[in-house]
Amino acid sequence: MNPIDTAARPATLAAWRRLAQVRPRLAALRPLGDCVRLPARTLLHAGPPLARPPCAPMLNSAVQAVLFEGWADTPEAAHALIADGSVRLAAAQDHDCVVPLASVLSPGQQVQVVQDASGMGRTAYAPLNGGSGPALRLGLPGPQVLAHLRWLNGPFAHAVRGVVPATRPLLSIADLALHQGDDCHGRTAAGSRALLEDWRAAGLAADGEAARFLADSPSFFLNLWMAAAKCMLSAAEGVAGSTLVTAMAGNGSQTGIQLAGLPGRWFTAAAAAPVGRIEPGRDVGDALPAIGDSALVETLGFGALAMQYAPAQREALGAYMPDTPERLCARLLLAPHPACTVSHVRVGLDAEAVLRHAQPPVVALGILDRKGMHGRIGGGIWQAPIAPFQAALAALAPQPAP
Amino acid sequence: MNPIDTAARPATLAAWRRLAQVRPRLAALRPLGDCVRLPARTLLHAGPPLARPPCAPMLNSAVQAVLFEGWADTPEAAHALIADGSVRLAAAQDHDCVVPLASVLSPGQQVQVVQDASGMGRTAYAPLNGGSGPALRLGLPGPQVLAHLRWLNGPFAHAVRGVVPATRPLLSIADLALHQGDDCHGRTAAGSRALLEDWRAAGLAADGEAARFLADSPSFFLNLWMAAAKCMLSAAEGVAGSTLVTAMAGNGSQTGIQLAGLPGRWFTAAAAAPVGRIEPGRDVGDALPAIGDSALVETLGFGALAMQYAPAQREALGAYMPDTPERLCARLLLAPHPACTVSHVRVGLDAEAVLRHAQPPVVALGILDRKGMHGRIGGGIWQAPIAPFQAALAALAPQPAP
Repeated sequence: MNPIDTAARPATLAAWRRLAQVRPRLAALRPLGDCVRLPARTLLHAGPPLARPPCAPMLNSAVQAVLFEGWADTPEAAHALIADGSVRLAAAQDHDCVVPLASVLSPGQQVQVVQDASGMGRTAYAPLNGGSGPALRLGLPGPQVLAHLRWLNGPFAHAVRGVVPATRPLLSIADLALHQGDDCHGRTAAGSRALLEDWRAAGLAADGEAARFLADSPSFFLNLWMAAAKCMLSAAEGVAGSTLVTAMAGNGSQTGIQLAGLPGRWFTAAAAAPVGRIEPGRDVGDALPAIGDSALVETLGFGALAMQYAPAQREALGAYMPDTPERLCARLLLAPHPACTVSHVRVGLDAEAVLRHAQPPVVALGILDRKGMHGRIGGGIWQAPIAPFQAALAALAPQPAP
Repeated sequence: MNPIDTAARPATLAAWRRLAQVRPRLAALRPLGDCVRLPARTLLHAGPPLARPPCAPMLNSAVQAVLFEGWADTPEAAHALIADGSVRLAAAQDHDCVVPLASVLSPGQQVQVVQDASGMGRTAYAPLNGGSGPALRLGLPGPQVLAHLRWLNGPFAHAVRGVVPATRPLLSIADLALHQGDDCHGRTAAGSRALLEDWRAAGLAADGEAARFLADSPSFFLNLWMAAAKCMLSAAEGVAGSTLVTAMAGNGSQTGIQLAGLPGRWFTAAAAAPVGRIEPGRDVGDALPAIGDSALVETLGFGALAMQYAPAQREALGAYMPDTPERLCARLLLAPHPACTVSHVRVGLDAEAVLRHAQPPVVALGILDRKGMHGRIGGGIWQAPIAPFQAALAALAPQPAP
């Protein structure tokens, strides 16, 4: 395995060097509306902008968010506001936000503010992870989702706001977490424990409700790491001619990517569902096409592309991989991250390498019920379609007119 | 003196509360081009966008910056690139940058990256202050300016880069500096000493060239505090209907302001020169109209509007003030900053108060030679013209059509 992909373009390596200098840190917890200016009554969803009405799970979550904001009093009234366009849905990543699965982000929700201590990357924002209960990301209807959302953004946020700035540098957490068996996407137990450690050390009551929730929420680190990935990838944007992938995500219908050389421009295709383990009683036909901004974790180089670090993930999902994670990361990712001195994990997905090896990146994704009734029905591996990579590279270097 | 201006609109107070929550900190020192995406061969200048060719001092500095970047080899070639539009000049504040006096900022120059630890304000960027020598802000020609610019952005930046993140919170420095006789604009000696203290404590060699430069540069804190003001004011932008002033600056020809309720929109008028002490041998007719983004310091509420804290400033410039600083700050500024527990300095300039009292804000400004031959020829007080405040308020609440 070459330490650095010597086949990559100079512009792609230049973008990689920018990415590799970013040092994301969790600066604060604040309402989204304090941080990001959105048009009135706008909700943010995962993936590229919607080309058609939202899928059922996203619609369920949008209704919950409308109720959370107090824009409507009943689910029916909330549905009506969304249906007639009074409440609009916009792509979170177009506003430097990241959203897991079928969640939606609204102005009153608390976001984890991730800044680059090195001063290069843009600030990125992620909602609090809802843990193992009735979390908004599952796309479910029902009052218990709204109650949990209120608790998470109310009492829980109040309890942790003061200790959040004491979080150690996020790359340190992720680097160590790989060493402890996380892939930082499908499995984030070690990263979540590290957060709890830091926050307890900073004064979070060990026996309080917030600490108990964190101890029971091995998924908690994921949203934060998604924002860190977005912050790092943003630093690579704008390097002319660079084929480094800076965004990858699904909206439950379409998937899209962006390149460093063409910042802000989505290249999309129809999304398939992840392939993997479906829970008993559910059918593969129930699976929603890929949804969530969490594919940013693999865009960086973690997740399924770092499955070799995570034995539990390999045990559960290795059979669904198109190749070994060792070979995938050596082929698709540019070089080891200089700050990850424990894991030496490779980072930086090169769209040109995707085409050279005819191997799209793989992503460890949760599988949701497409009808929005059963939430998470499994977990699997999703292979990105190759067409957006072809289209993006063609757009980067347009053919001269004949 | 009312602790809070009870005549202010609710929207203006809402914008003020946002401003007052920002906690600016110096995160890093990096080349501007790493942080801000500019079109190729673009230089950033102070004040609103230029409506005509740059004044002589700004043109001199632009030539120096072109040579610094290596875009031309001789001053004549640099002049030609600027004259034919191959090198463009753009307003720094439109890119979250701040520029003192006649300086210009170019992609290879190091900027102090000021982030909001509270997660609300946008990141702002300021060049390193050139101290008491042949600094770029003076608008002078000659090889010694270029040599100093290279030293400042080369060896000096290299020496301090590692200790910069150890800087204490910038509001703490400014609050204490007022107590120690600074106004944080015309006089920044105490603030500059505080920086040197923090950087020495973090390992900057006490007897090195960088520390000696800092000890001899009482102006050093100014650029950093301008970026802090920009970061704080940015958080107020976008509150509909708010009359809080979020930008004020001059470009050597025109002056301009912006309101929180109309973010990004400049309201301009012809600029007069500051009135004050002219050095022996120079004439008041030599004075360049107001130039520099440092009026952001008064936009926040420091500088001439806090002259009561700075006996040396009052001694030197009090005679040129239209009223006592005590009365000016009580009338024009909204309320004491909650984090400034030593000084209780008032912050938040209200355009509506400017009109109510028919009293434009005053700014402690350096006076430059308009021909760009003698640099700084004095220091004085500049009164902003009232017309932009009238125009901005009219634009905020347009009259209904008859």
